[in-house]
Amino acid sequence: MPIDSASPITITGYDWVPYFAKGHVRDLRVRWALEEAGQSYRAKLLAQGDQKAPPHRALQPFGQVPTYEEGDVTLFESGAIVLHIAERFGGGLLPADPAARARAIEWTFAALNTVEPPITDYAIATLFEVEEPWSAPRLPAVKARIAERLEELSNRLGDRDWLDGDFSAGDLLMIAVLRMVASDGLLNPYPNLAAYVARGEARPAFRRALADHMAGFTGDPPPGFAEWEAKMKAAEPA
Amino acid sequence: MPIDSASPITITGYDWVPYFAKGHVRDLRVRWALEEAGQSYRAKLLAQGDQKAPPHRALQPFGQVPTYEEGDVTLFESGAIVLHIAERFGGGLLPADPAARARAIEWTFAALNTVEPPITDYAIATLFEVEEPWSAPRLPAVKARIAERLEELSNRLGDRDWLDGDFSAGDLLMIAVLRMVASDGLLNPYPNLAAYVARGEARPAFRRALADHMAGFTGDPPPGFAEWEAKMKAAEPA
Repeated sequence: MPIDSASPITITGYDWVPYFAKGHVRDLRVRWALEEAGQSYRAKLLAQGDQKAPPHRALQPFGQVPTYEEGDVTLFESGAIVLHIAERFGGGLLPADPAARARAIEWTFAALNTVEPPITDYAIATLFEVEEPWSAPRLPAVKARIAERLEELSNRLGDRDWLDGDFSAGDLLMIAVLRMVASDGLLNPYPNLAAYVARGEARPAFRRALADHMAGFTGDPPPGFAEWEAKMKAAEPA
Repeated sequence: MPIDSASPITITGYDWVPYFAKGHVRDLRVRWALEEAGQSYRAKLLAQGDQKAPPHRALQPFGQVPTYEEGDVTLFESGAIVLHIAERFGGGLLPADPAARARAIEWTFAALNTVEPPITDYAIATLFEVEEPWSAPRLPAVKARIAERLEELSNRLGDRDWLDGDFSAGDLLMIAVLRMVASDGLLNPYPNLAAYVARGEARPAFRRALADHMAGFTGDPPPGFAEWEAKMKAAEPA
């Protein structure tokens, strides 16, 4: 569904993020769920810094995006928003069978509480704290924690298309998490995980969501951020 | 409800963990939810190492506890299990009003995906990797990330008893997460968060769950673990 200024659903994202965050800010997860569910939405894109200002804090106590508003429902936390969209609109994101539904929800938590934390840790070590003296020596331990989780996930996925039966909210969130380390080659030892991510990214709903997510970055970096970004880019391994 | 060998619900935990993990292994979260919902259960307690063996891996792909089994439902991820118990048995863990229910679920994700990751990071730095040369110099950055989240949470909680209306699954998981750093003094700057945790811990359901969780540690440490635990204890700040 297109972005539609008359939609009753409003989400928030950013109008600018550094190059490495484009395609990964969590509004993408919510856009993807809305596309799977066939729902149009409005996207309110914040300038960097505005996420910490009082109006947005009232919606999101941690000063992050995305948020979700529809009528009397105001939510934050992309995992919760994806589940809400799944329950509110269907769209095949949660199975009807109660046991299968519980397992799909289980995979949303596995994505966000078991697989994502070491991946976030990796992003901190390789991006935000890349210049700290402790980051490089610590990186092997961080990568080992990610590899342990990826191997376990690879073993469970096996040759299935999706984690448990049909594509679900659990796959959506797991693929969104795995994508974060795909370009760094961390999925290379697990061809079934790389293929799983590719299957997710090939879904028309994902492609629409990603295109609209990327098209939203029309803002300028705040003062000083362009220099910081250039420095980050220069520090990347070739 | 007492532990009952005739209960249709079986959960898993450990029969031994190091001193610092007692009172914090995630089966406690599930026991607490079952107690709030008035459900008896059986607890199958694994010896250390058995969580990585094939029989348990079949239930839990990441080789962790807890798991939850009832009839044709088999689940892992404590967050998902708590939500399942809330939906299956009620017990006041999720409000009936749809918007309030979505917000309670939102707080379960906030606990596990926003507040817990830096706290897990702190546990790794101060316990499992305490002897690594990078842990001590990095600790101020880890603590700063936790403090940012705690301040934001403290500001949102304000003088409320619970995060959003009555006690919910969101409070249960948030309090379980915050408890992990309470004994290290990290909640001290936030008296309302300390009081919030104390309110949760004073609930009869929590007290029963904690007592049964602690009573389950009747096993012996695996070879080498007692020495490791003694070394960890000796390395703790006075």
